[in-house]
Amino acid sequence: MASESGKLWGGRFVGTVDPIMEKFNSSITYDRHLWEVDVQGSKAYSRGLEKAGLLTKAEMDQILSGLDKVAEEWAQGIFRLNPNDEDIHTANERRLKELIGETAGKLHTGRSRNDQVVTDLRLWMRQTCSKLSALLWALIRTMVDRAEAERDILFPGYTHLQRAQPIRWSHWILSHAVALTRDAERLLEVQKRINVLPLGSGAIAGNPLGVDRELLRAELNFGAITLNSMDATSERDFVAEFLFWASLCMTHLSRVAEDLILYGTKEFSFVQLSDAYSTGSSLMPQKKNPDSLELIRSKAGRVFGRCAGLLMTLKGLPSTYNKDLQEDKEAVFEVSDTMSAVLQVATGVISTLQIHRENMAQALSPDMLATDLAYYLVRKGMPFRQAHEASGRAVFMAETKGVALNQLSLKDLQTISPLFSGDVSLVWDYGHSVEQYSALGGTARSSVDWQIGQVRALLQAQQSSITHKPIPK
Amino acid sequence: MASESGKLWGGRFVGTVDPIMEKFNSSITYDRHLWEVDVQGSKAYSRGLEKAGLLTKAEMDQILSGLDKVAEEWAQGIFRLNPNDEDIHTANERRLKELIGETAGKLHTGRSRNDQVVTDLRLWMRQTCSKLSALLWALIRTMVDRAEAERDILFPGYTHLQRAQPIRWSHWILSHAVALTRDAERLLEVQKRINVLPLGSGAIAGNPLGVDRELLRAELNFGAITLNSMDATSERDFVAEFLFWASLCMTHLSRVAEDLILYGTKEFSFVQLSDAYSTGSSLMPQKKNPDSLELIRSKAGRVFGRCAGLLMTLKGLPSTYNKDLQEDKEAVFEVSDTMSAVLQVATGVISTLQIHRENMAQALSPDMLATDLAYYLVRKGMPFRQAHEASGRAVFMAETKGVALNQLSLKDLQTISPLFSGDVSLVWDYGHSVEQYSALGGTARSSVDWQIGQVRALLQAQQSSITHKPIPK
Amino acid sequence: MASESGKLWGGRFVGTVDPIMEKFNSSITYDRHLWEVDVQGSKAYSRGLEKAGLLTKAEMDQILSGLDKVAEEWAQGIFRLNPNDEDIHTANERRLKELIGETAGKLHTGRSRNDQVVTDLRLWMRQTCSKLSALLWALIRTMVDRAEAERDILFPGYTHLQRAQPIRWSHWILSHAVALTRDAERLLEVQKRINVLPLGSGAIAGNPLGVDRELLRAELNFGAITLNSMDATSERDFVAEFLFWASLCMTHLSRVAEDLILYGTKEFSFVQLSDAYSTGSSLMPQKKNPDSLELIRSKAGRVFGRCAGLLMTLKGLPSTYNKDLQEDKEAVFEVSDTMSAVLQVATGVISTLQIHRENMAQALSPDMLATDLAYYLVRKGMPFRQAHEASGRAVFMAETKGVALNQLSLKDLQTISPLFSGDVSLVWDYGHSVEQYSALGGTARSSVDWQIGQVRALLQAQQSSITHKPIPK
Amino acid sequence: MASESGKLWGGRFVGTVDPIMEKFNSSITYDRHLWEVDVQGSKAYSRGLEKAGLLTKAEMDQILSGLDKVAEEWAQGIFRLNPNDEDIHTANERRLKELIGETAGKLHTGRSRNDQVVTDLRLWMRQTCSKLSALLWALIRTMVDRAEAERDILFPGYTHLQRAQPIRWSHWILSHAVALTRDAERLLEVQKRINVLPLGSGAIAGNPLGVDRELLRAELNFGAITLNSMDATSERDFVAEFLFWASLCMTHLSRVAEDLILYGTKEFSFVQLSDAYSTGSSLMPQKKNPDSLELIRSKAGRVFGRCAGLLMTLKGLPSTYNKDLQEDKEAVFEVSDTMSAVLQVATGVISTLQIHRENMAQALSPDMLATDLAYYLVRKGMPFRQAHEASGRAVFMAETKGVALNQLSLKDLQTISPLFSGDVSLVWDYGHSVEQYSALGGTARSSVDWQIGQVRALLQAQQSSITHKPIPK
Repeated sequence: MASESGKLWGGRFVGTVDPIMEKFNSSITYDRHLWEVDVQGSKAYSRGLEKAGLLTKAEMDQILSGLDKVAEEWAQGIFRLNPNDEDIHTANERRLKELIGETAGKLHTGRSRNDQVVTDLRLWMRQTCSKLSALLWALIRTMVDRAEAERDILFPGYTHLQRAQPIRWSHWILSHAVALTRDAERLLEVQKRINVLPLGSGAIAGNPLGVDRELLRAELNFGAITLNSMDATSERDFVAEFLFWASLCMTHLSRVAEDLILYGTKEFSFVQLSDAYSTGSSLMPQKKNPDSLELIRSKAGRVFGRCAGLLMTLKGLPSTYNKDLQEDKEAVFEVSDTMSAVLQVATGVISTLQIHRENMAQALSPDMLATDLAYYLVRKGMPFRQAHEASGRAVFMAETKGVALNQLSLKDLQTISPLFSGDVSLVWDYGHSVEQYSALGGTARSSVDWQIGQVRALLQAQQSSITHKPIPK
Repeated sequence: MASESGKLWGGRFVGTVDPIMEKFNSSITYDRHLWEVDVQGSKAYSRGLEKAGLLTKAEMDQILSGLDKVAEEWAQGIFRLNPNDEDIHTANERRLKELIGETAGKLHTGRSRNDQVVTDLRLWMRQTCSKLSALLWALIRTMVDRAEAERDILFPGYTHLQRAQPIRWSHWILSHAVALTRDAERLLEVQKRINVLPLGSGAIAGNPLGVDRELLRAELNFGAITLNSMDATSERDFVAEFLFWASLCMTHLSRVAEDLILYGTKEFSFVQLSDAYSTGSSLMPQKKNPDSLELIRSKAGRVFGRCAGLLMTLKGLPSTYNKDLQEDKEAVFEVSDTMSAVLQVATGVISTLQIHRENMAQALSPDMLATDLAYYLVRKGMPFRQAHEASGRAVFMAETKGVALNQLSLKDLQTISPLFSGDVSLVWDYGHSVEQYSALGGTARSSVDWQIGQVRALLQAQQSSITHKPIPK
Repeated sequence: MASESGKLWGGRFVGTVDPIMEKFNSSITYDRHLWEVDVQGSKAYSRGLEKAGLLTKAEMDQILSGLDKVAEEWAQGIFRLNPNDEDIHTANERRLKELIGETAGKLHTGRSRNDQVVTDLRLWMRQTCSKLSALLWALIRTMVDRAEAERDILFPGYTHLQRAQPIRWSHWILSHAVALTRDAERLLEVQKRINVLPLGSGAIAGNPLGVDRELLRAELNFGAITLNSMDATSERDFVAEFLFWASLCMTHLSRVAEDLILYGTKEFSFVQLSDAYSTGSSLMPQKKNPDSLELIRSKAGRVFGRCAGLLMTLKGLPSTYNKDLQEDKEAVFEVSDTMSAVLQVATGVISTLQIHRENMAQALSPDMLATDLAYYLVRKGMPFRQAHEASGRAVFMAETKGVALNQLSLKDLQTISPLFSGDVSLVWDYGHSVEQYSALGGTARSSVDWQIGQVRALLQAQQSSITHKPIPK
Repeated sequence: MASESGKLWGGRFVGTVDPIMEKFNSSITYDRHLWEVDVQGSKAYSRGLEKAGLLTKAEMDQILSGLDKVAEEWAQGIFRLNPNDEDIHTANERRLKELIGETAGKLHTGRSRNDQVVTDLRLWMRQTCSKLSALLWALIRTMVDRAEAERDILFPGYTHLQRAQPIRWSHWILSHAVALTRDAERLLEVQKRINVLPLGSGAIAGNPLGVDRELLRAELNFGAITLNSMDATSERDFVAEFLFWASLCMTHLSRVAEDLILYGTKEFSFVQLSDAYSTGSSLMPQKKNPDSLELIRSKAGRVFGRCAGLLMTLKGLPSTYNKDLQEDKEAVFEVSDTMSAVLQVATGVISTLQIHRENMAQALSPDMLATDLAYYLVRKGMPFRQAHEASGRAVFMAETKGVALNQLSLKDLQTISPLFSGDVSLVWDYGHSVEQYSALGGTARSSVDWQIGQVRALLQAQQSSITHKPIPK
């Protein structure tokens, strides 16, 4: 006996019900977010039951209008949860029964919470993916617009955080925008795999009552149906994929944030965050901190943690539904909210960021043209490896003399190589430097324009690939 | 200009305030859990200020009694948050000012939210660790009590999930209890490092007003003070350690859960969960599912995900406080709640579990004594490798003949080795088998008793190592 | 001065060279795996240089034939590394120079190791993806063939590891095969994003010498070129995606392994591993352990660890190339090797597994038909909720009477509902039970056949989507 | 039949042996690192067998001298592996048998590879922990020595990467040194839990032959013995703890690296890496990249990945030994090597780093004294909140006037508060500013000296806590 055992082993007392277990088991505190899709799924299912002859037309209509009332109560915030409503499915069906009576008991025929919950989650996530796609596109568009407008501003490009070569500011913006286009592409792929209907899989073995899954698919506007009922009720690939999508996207945004935090330091002074995205210090009156960017950077960890958690939960599970899978929803809800906020804040930051173009210009220095000096010699016929070495010697000579690289006299340069002549002076022009990089993908103006065109075309193509029609009421 | 830029780059409109940013930045929705420790910290700090001559005795008293009122409002659930209360520190000080006027403005002298928040969090976690220790000890105690009571029940020990050797059921229970004692030990170590006072570190450089940190330490009953103000305000080792502690503990509990799920299958039928920890199926009337155990198993993933997330957030951060660190609190709160529930549910499960001792006994089979058969030969002088091989041949012979290993005749056995004689029949006794394992840590009764004693002594020692006095009001 | 400082601060002595640093920095021990693709990339690049007028035809030919010799040395295992060869690029160019002299110094013109290494890695991974796709398809095909052949074997389907409903053994096989088809689909998507050419991006700013990147793309048979040189040299999305692909695939295989380990226990006795995939015990003569399956299950952790590690490394990196990115290659090589071994071992396991169909049949029990009993009532017009409850009462009645569910007399059943009549006896047939689940995706024979057809069609479609032509020599 | 099945299901052919499975299963490629400890463990075990009467003195001596020969062969690099040597235990025993004959077959009596391997690993890790402790202490000592020598250098302290307050350069060094002392403390705790003997646990049930585990403990110089044989052979807490220890330590070092990378940029120009820890660019002649620091930063990901991988592998494993546990060793070996290299490189970097004290001084600016200005008013009696606001107004006034904060005239300041008087000029002294922070842990010289003393005392205490005696030959 449970209670006797409880006494016997000295554990905390438990009667037939352990309130901590009840709370531990219950999912209603978070899966209530699914109320709308749960109703949608049930409406479609009752249509399926009617077609299969398990509901009369009248019964179906009764259920449909009952479900509409349930939805209305949720929408108006007047739905009252019972203590026994352990999940949204139980809550909605319980309420339906209160509203329409015993007929409500026919709704769950041939269905299990195993296929119901995963249908709901897919419906919810499909919608969320559309919202996140729109937010991501808005961010990319903002970046591209800005890149186009500020195309003529040069500043240092860094590798290893050391000044490397002069680049266009727009080239930097586009480097991040291009990364985000891959996120947008991946999100569409994830959404495609979300958009598959599991309803009609039952608990494990499938549906035994002739419900037409193609009809359910069409009702709920899914792209396809799942192939195997055991897989359908227990796979959470689409959740794992979504969480990983978010993790990789956040990794990109963490790098944008890192760059802007650096560029916004006193030392770099290339950019200044709008007040709307900064906060002050409770102690130091002079400070303005880039909190928005730091939060974006930090969320990469949180989001990835959810991905890691889910994969660990999935590892080694036996076939089909195990309660372990209940971990999926909180992860999805939290990550969706985070992504939504991050994408909007990032768009706000980028669209309101001030740049200090004079500081950017002043940060360019002749030693960043050492590679161009080598190319100068290459163009005169010297093999690159020798040219690289010759340019290195020029850098060293300038350092030794305590002058800038472009202050070396022609005579000085000629002690390094006789190939130097008067036209070397053209090398010392930053505008001329960037214009060399005209191969596709480079920092020349033409190439930057090409990039802008490419990204815009990509966005267009992605947006037009979406063809979800609304689910009929 | 922010707003102009907003228009210029086509981003979403932002005025001076972006409501999404405000919400993104705010921590009050979760750090309100810190209300009590925040008041405790502020009370101690005001005493420090008084000693340092920055508050008069009267001002201090005014602040102390104001803070008590703030605490009372929280305790009674009548504290009203303002829209501008972005965090618990701001909220409490704002309210204090409403209650006592301008003197409230002296409380933050020389303090920063950077040292304040981490003091609060350490106070909160110190308390939580004590609670979790108590729950963990209760679980271990339940296991040990049960192990003691059920010492004479034998069942199969498995390696690779294949039947290996007969063991005592208590030996299995203790294997998990012993693992948990390490968690208890580690938690005390983590708590020791939590129990270090950062207050008086300011934002970064320390405290410039002669506040006596040893006095603050004593007021708040910390074990030590932090050594370096920059480290004190930006390190979150104690959070990472706590999250990892929980992750490893959950890994143990996931293994307990896995074992019990298996032992509770129809196929094993060794144990049966109490109804209080099982749930039924919405579709299949005959089913009783071990939801409690599955949830425990699954939480290992969730908890570890928080640990992974925090470490990723910390990776590569520049020195001292960055807003990224705000990620620490939700992780701590969620993991603390999860651990508290899991430990209590696990205790409930163990204390109410029914066991089927007949099934356990029936699952023992003679082939599990093949190792004992080899030891029989070893005791007669045969080198183990040969004995192992001889025993293997006996196993094969029995399989070939289609009989159980103990049904081989003495003559049969003697074809394998002349060392077999009549006393081999003693080998086929499971009770005799387990009693051989009398070396410390083995499954003999004496060794199991020794284990019980060792674990109880360990718990005693751990419990008596705790010496926190309550913080004076 | 370094050396003086070394003395000053009491650290370990360092001269101009720290051998530990050299080893720490060097990647040749693992990036030598890239020798072949490095040569391919260089050959294409030298053709690009020739088109751009930076090499004469003769120089190009000299370089091409020199590179062929380099490749030959690697292929024959006679390439000798120098102590100074810190990476494969340096090693190959150094050797080229030894073979053809100063002209070798022209090969790196306008190229950087930043675009070179990522080109090499993409070439290598593209090839690896093709190999892994082939192995994955082979595994799926083996599963589908087996599912087809063993379609008429029934056994218990489990949810929560509790016996749930009778299913076809093939339905179980297909549930895992279907999951793997998603992995195959995802791998093609990852490969598509791998198959993009970064060469011509230089260190950061692009290529300044008019090299035609479309020509390079065609030479190396890439599907597209990267859009932005900064992004191209510093993004490792394709690596992260590959590692996550592997992690999710391994999660699936860990679940297959878990199921088979369980089904192979003495208690389940449904399957038996071939000796080729089991190992014995050094101590217990009677044991045969499913090491192959345990290793597969365990690798899910290892592979995911690499994914987690890379994402953490990427988090918060500043723009463009940082040496941190050097972490990508070992992760890719290890995970590729692991996946290759796992997929082959899994195929071996599945193709040689013995099944015990009698045990499978015996494990079916009447209580698993309780849902069918409810459906019986549903078909007679009872709302499902009531039918579920009625069936539950029958289960309870049978338990109370100590008989199997199908041993209840019609009279007994009629005390529960008058809807029961003589035809209830048809319910107690397992074959009849599974045939009910004829909706698409269910366990009826027609539905299993449909699944087999669907998976085969999918594989066909996936295989024909690959159109890589070999890279011209 | 395996082979027939192989043909039947169309999988790749497998005979009795699958070479890929053999390789997959084998651990000898990496566990050979354990050769020395494996011999140590076996020598101790043979002494235990002799005491238990299972070996004669002569047999023991034969085994001991045989094992010494085995060890010698390994030490001299002449040990020859057989294709059948799947692990180090098999290899060593096989060789022992070749050297001394059948007596070798007595060595494994009552032992299993399950307790043997974990004994070996603990011996190996115990040694490694000592080495890593020594390297960690050397790094901390280098930092403290440097902090002591450069105590009078001031530079900006940053929060949110924004200039916050003037601090001592030594205060920055010590902030990281203090963090590392926690790693040193944790490593000792981990080592304490590693230093527990599992030998004598057998495969699962314990040791049945009267082997005295206390004698084994003393022979191998362990601190304690494991309590439960099932736990002893299957727990890998000590591995998980070690991997997490390394992860957290690497997180600290990643932050040191990040700071130094930033401080070494052209924009900050506070420090310059020694050439021994930088590398050049294959393209840009002027560049010197902080590769050492970037590698350190990146390794945080790799190391954590191993920790994540192991925990995921452990999650949900059934009781006792499963082959999954074989994943432990490669993780340990890789992480140990990485930590050893990282700690030495970090020590080299710190000990040879040049600092530019003029640049540090020039980076201090009057606005960083705004907090001090507030404190000035506080000392005159103004509540801090008002003083903070007043100082903020001064900052704004200076900005508006386009002058530095310290250029505001006394009259200007008095428009903000009448409390300003002539002595305000003392505020504008950076040396005076830092000296205010004299509370323990602050940046005043006395406090920095205190920190140095504290850290040195800690190191001393940690080092003297180690009391391992060498294992007798």
